This record gives sequence, structure tokens and C-alpha cells, in this order.
Amino acid sequence: MPVVIPLGFEFAGASCGIKRMADKEDISLVICRGGAVAAGVYTQNRVFAAPVALDRQRTPSADIRVVVTNSGNANACTGERGLRDAQEMARLAASACGAPPEQALVMSTGVIGEFLPMEKVAAGIASAAQNLGADEAAFLAAVRGIMTTDRGPKYTSRALRLGEREVRIAGMAKGAGMIGPNMATMLSVITTDAALTPEAAQAALVAAADESFNCISVEGHTSTNDTLLLLASGAAGGEALSGDDLQTFRAALTELCIELAKQIPDDGEGATHLIAIEVQGCDTRDDAQRIAHAIANSALVKTAIAGGDPNWGRIVSAAGYAGVAFDPAQVSLHLNGHAIYENGAPVSFQAKTVSQSIQNQHETQIVLRIGAGPAQCRHWTSDLTVDYVKFNADYHT
Amino acid sequence: MPVVIPLGFEFAGASCGIKRMADKEDISLVICRGGAVAAGVYTQNRVFAAPVALDRQRTPSADIRVVVTNSGNANACTGERGLRDAQEMARLAASACGAPPEQALVMSTGVIGEFLPMEKVAAGIASAAQNLGADEAAFLAAVRGIMTTDRGPKYTSRALRLGEREVRIAGMAKGAGMIGPNMATMLSVITTDAALTPEAAQAALVAAADESFNCISVEGHTSTNDTLLLLASGAAGGEALSGDDLQTFRAALTELCIELAKQIPDDGEGATHLIAIEVQGCDTRDDAQRIAHAIANSALVKTAIAGGDPNWGRIVSAAGYAGVAFDPAQVSLHLNGHAIYENGAPVSFQAKTVSQSIQNQHETQIVLRIGAGPAQCRHWTSDLTVDYVKFNADYHT
Repeated sequence: MPVVIPLGFEFAGASCGIKRMADKEDISLVICRGGAVAAGVYTQNRVFAAPVALDRQRTPSADIRVVVTNSGNANACTGERGLRDAQEMARLAASACGAPPEQALVMSTGVIGEFLPMEKVAAGIASAAQNLGADEAAFLAAVRGIMTTDRGPKYTSRALRLGEREVRIAGMAKGAGMIGPNMATMLSVITTDAALTPEAAQAALVAAADESFNCISVEGHTSTNDTLLLLASGAAGGEALSGDDLQTFRAALTELCIELAKQIPDDGEGATHLIAIEVQGCDTRDDAQRIAHAIANSALVKTAIAGGDPNWGRIVSAAGYAGVAFDPAQVSLHLNGHAIYENGAPVSFQAKTVSQSIQNQHETQIVLRIGAGPAQCRHWTSDLTVDYVKFNADYHT
Repeated sequence: MPVVIPLGFEFAGASCGIKRMADKEDISLVICRGGAVAAGVYTQNRVFAAPVALDRQRTPSADIRVVVTNSGNANACTGERGLRDAQEMARLAASACGAPPEQALVMSTGVIGEFLPMEKVAAGIASAAQNLGADEAAFLAAVRGIMTTDRGPKYTSRALRLGEREVRIAGMAKGAGMIGPNMATMLSVITTDAALTPEAAQAALVAAADESFNCISVEGHTSTNDTLLLLASGAAGGEALSGDDLQTFRAALTELCIELAKQIPDDGEGATHLIAIEVQGCDTRDDAQRIAHAIANSALVKTAIAGGDPNWGRIVSAAGYAGVAFDPAQVSLHLNGHAIYENGAPVSFQAKTVSQSIQNQHETQIVLRIGAGPAQCRHWTSDLTVDYVKFNADYHT
């Protein structure tokens, strides 16, 4: 599927030697020379990195010109030097597109523990600024520039018609580890040529994140650097969206964010299954989310799926310690469409059939009904495999 | 170290074929013919198994005669049949020592998902009742009878002098997986010949659990069957303990519970390190515990320790998402006594030296100072290894 590139943007990626493999892009630029409305949603971690501190101050905004990202070595620092490095990255990127420094946003991802190699970063930004393009190749280079342990680039795009106008949305994301609900080391930039006010952009992005990036996890560890940005160039023309057009745009943005977000646990470090968890029949959405998170973060549930084991005990008991009051006698569980637990008791089922359906499909569907309440939620996570552990125990070697 | 056996108790273990290996004990009896004061602390999981439901009703008590445990197949059911099976186990065990059925307590552990094979259980109780003893060999057979994936028996004991009197305490425990804070699939029976009122026994046990069994985790999954029981025979003589003697007893009980509880993560499934986490300088103990639990349950922290990686970023960022307000600029971290993060910023340290200290020692000590508050806590957990995943993905095969 070709990428639908929104009007008004240029993209680039460059290699500057932060990553050990010399041919891997580790700098990414997304530029809007005309100035974009920008919105942001960030990590909820108390310990947040300097780039998040900087972007938080600058969004929502009516005039952002560039987003610069480095990968390979995270600027995860909260102190003075981290902030100075983030400001310097912003200044270099803004300067490369002739904008004042405060019109740049910054993201950073990679190994935590070292300060940024600022000379390499400066060289990378200069090099990327020489290779800007508005085509698919340039877009994909920018996507590769934000990748760390991702097995492949994560992006999606679409065009939608709003009355007379056609607008385009294209999103890129990265993340494969340190992914917990509420924005883990997840970076994502969504560009659109729709015209939006800063307030509408921010509200649309928060609503979309709540159904997508805040409903995914790999191991449940919330990073210090998570950033989701929306840049709206307005280059599709017309007044800022409102009324039905804005609603249609918001629905499309949420859909696109779900599609993008699911790619993250689908590519979880070492993962062999994408686990889709649907919790139904709760009193509140918050209750449903707590239960989904407890299941998604249970190492025992995740290893059971990796092993093709239809283990209702691990799933139901995880729901039980989520801190939500419910009547166990009303709980029912379906795994890949098979009823395995109903009204608080196991039902007889063909364990081999269900096990094979887990083993033969990449996606495992867990549907847990808690009671008769009106609220529900969806959550996507990875299974837990030997390769996840190998990967994270030997990250530096 | 020989086991100090409290007066007034008899013990036995027997094999009845619930476990696949014919020579492994899967029934355990602890009998007090004179009648023991009994206290219990149970899982906080909303979904709790039938044996927990039964024991909860029966404790605290002034007159319990027997604790019967089966291992190999957990009675994890919450429905009618689960309760009927637990009641039948209690009846069989009480009958074996000539007591009415309501003077028995029941515990159950093992694979979740199948009902109990009650004929085997009945035969096992009958066989164990033929082999009761008050010596170390009988005690150890009873310990083996509660084991599941444990690599070895977990027990400890001591004698203490209270004025004129000497009293003895002996504890046994099991648990190596599905261990989260607040009593995971952890079973433990503490016997003492001290004289205690039911109220004093219950209060002492709750206080001891709060410093011990509620401060350990393997993977943070809270089981449906956790049970910690204290039986006090009073056979050491004298009136029920009070005043200073009761305080001394409570302190000894807490010490013994900590020693016993630490054996569980130390033997976590696949674990190569016991991780001791100390969180200091919090405003409240609850804050300190939330932070300790977030660190202890982070797969990224646990894999880092398995890999000998002194990764401050993973530890500090886990503290950051624990839901506790703190100033990151005041945070300091020591790993095995080495300062690696101070006042919100990494300090220069010999990564190789710290890494080697992790690799060369079985216990890793994490000391995280959050601020200048008065509260602190300790928590013990396991590292996360390839073997944990192999074990839990292939549990049935």
C-alpha cells in the first residue's frame, strides 16, 4: 500500500553513528515550512525526560516548523544537561529549516544511561536537512530514523473526503519494548494536511490516544520518553474543521491511531502472538481497563499464550487482583471464540482444539465478560517468550 | 540445622498419585490432638478458591485439630463442586484424627483447571494418618507434601525464652510461581507451642505477614489459593502470652516469617538472583510499597539483573510510574552498595565492577532513596530468566 503523504510536509532520515550499524538511520526530521498546528500527548511517568519537558511546554501550538528525533541513545535525563541537550537539538533542527528555535519539537529514544553524543547529533541533523523530500522514500527514511529494536517500520496513512475537501493523514510510530499503558517508550508523529485549531487538534489527539496508544502494552513498563505528536499543516485548504467534518476527522484519526498502536505489541520484543483482550460488562470503563491491564501484564497469562495453553485459571485470577469489585459467579471467558469458563466455573472444552487455534493463529482473542454492566474496553499486548528475556538480559552485549 | 519441633503437634506426608511422580508426597497433615488456637491470612484476590472460603470462615479459632493440604492439582474453584470437595477433604482429615469436621482447615495447590481427584485424596489422607510423627522426618514429609514446583523444601524454626518458659516456632512454606504481593500461590503453616488467645494469634500473624509474605513477589500474579496459617498448641504451658512476652513472641514470629518468605523468591521459577529492594525516604509506607512493587514487577528490571546490567534507567523509571508523587531531582540509587544515580542524575561509576558484583553474588541489593520522608519498606523478588518463560510456557507438557 503506497503511503498517502499529507501536503505541506517534508521528511528525512540520516545516519550519524549513534547506532552501531553505520547504515541505520538514527536522525529523523519532519518539517512543515508553512508552520503546523501541533498537539502532543506524553508519558504519565513522574520521571520524564528532557525532550518531553520541552515538548510539553511547546504544545498545543499554532506554529511548529519541525520535529527532530534521534534514536539509538535516549536523552532520558531529567537534569540540566539533558534539558540543555534537548534545547540544542531543537535549535539545530529549527536552524536547518530557517525557523526560530522555539518552533521545534524534540523526541529521543534508545538505550538509557548515557548523555547524548551532541556532535554526532548535530552532524546528523545537518545531513538529514540535505535530503528532505515529500515522497514515500523520504517518509520511510524518517520512519527508520525513529526505530530502535523494531523489526520493521510502523506506519499507516489514509485520505478522507470531508464535503468538498480531501484531507490526508499519515502516521509513523516506533516501539517494541518498555511499552506499558499510558504511553511507554513509544514515539509517534501523525501528520495531516487538514486545517485544525490548536484546541481541536489537542482534543482530537487526546481522544484518539485514549482508544489506541493508551490501550497497548508489551511488558507494562511505562517509559520516561513517550511522545505522540499531531502536526496539522492546513495545506489541504479551507477553514479550520468544525461540526460534522471535525467529527469525521476525529473518527478517522482514532482509527488510524488504533491501527498504528496495534503494530507495537504485534512487534513486541520476542513476541510470537498479538493478544487482543476485550473486557465486557463492567460498571465503568476504568474498571474494564484495570482488569485488561492486569491480564495484559501477567507474565503467567503471556507465557501461557506463548505456549498455546488455554489456561483460564491464569486469566480469571489476574482479573481477580485488578482491584475491581465483581461477583466471580458471573464471570465468563472465551478464548479464540471458544467458551472455556462460564458463570464462575470451567466448562468442558476440547483443550487440544483451543490450544491448536492459539498455536496456528498469530492473534489470540481473549474475551472476558465480568457482569452485566455497560462498560467495556479493548487492550492489545504481546506474549512473553524466551526471546524477550534473552533480548532484555543482553541488551548491551 | 535441626528442626525445632513445637510440642503438641504431629506431622505426616503421603503420596496418593495426584503428582505424576509416584514417589512425591502430595498430601500433608499437621495435627494438634489437644486442639490449637488458629489464625489465618488469605489471598486478597476477588476470585478465591474454595479452601480459602472454608478456612476464612473457620479462623480465628480456639480449637483446630488438623490442617490438610493437597498438592499437584489445585482446588481453585469458586463454585459448588469446589466447596463440596474442600468440605470433604476437611471431613476426611478430621475423621482421621477423631475430630468433628469443622475442626479441620484445608489448603490446596498445583495446576489450575481440573477438579480434585477425590478418591486419591481420600486414600492419601488415610495413608498419611498411618504415618504421623512428632520428629524431624515427619515434619519434612509434611513439608514435601505441600511442595509443587519448589526446588527444595522451605522451612525454618527456632526456640525462644520468654521469662521462665521456652517456646518453639516452626514454619513451612511452598511457592515458586504465581507469587505476587498480598499472598500469591503461597501456602504456609506456622506451628508453635506458645499459648495464645485467638485474637492475639490473629493480630500477630497479620503483623508478621505485612512485613514478610506480603513483601515478596516472583512475577506479581496474585493467586486464588494463598493461605498462611498459625497454629498455637499452648503445649509449652502457662497462661496465654501477654505484655512483654507477647511482644517478644510477635517479633520472633515476624523474623521467622521474613526468613521463610524470602525463601520463596529465592527459589522463584528459573530465578538466578534474589533481588532485595529497599525503598527509603517516602512520606508513607504505602508509597514505599507501591514503588517497591512497581520495581519488583518490572520485567525490564528483572531481566537487567538476570543479565548483570546495572541499568538505573529501568529502576528509576519503574518508580516513576508507581502512582506516587515525588520530586525526581531528589532520587538516589545504590546497587550492591555502589552509588549509580544521585539527586536525579546518573553518576559516573565503574559499570564493569557493578556488573560483576551482580553476576558474582546470588543476592542483588537495590536501595532507592526517594526523598526525605520517614517511611520505608523492603521487598524481595526474583529475576526473570529464560528458564522462567520455558517453565511457564510448557507447564503442561
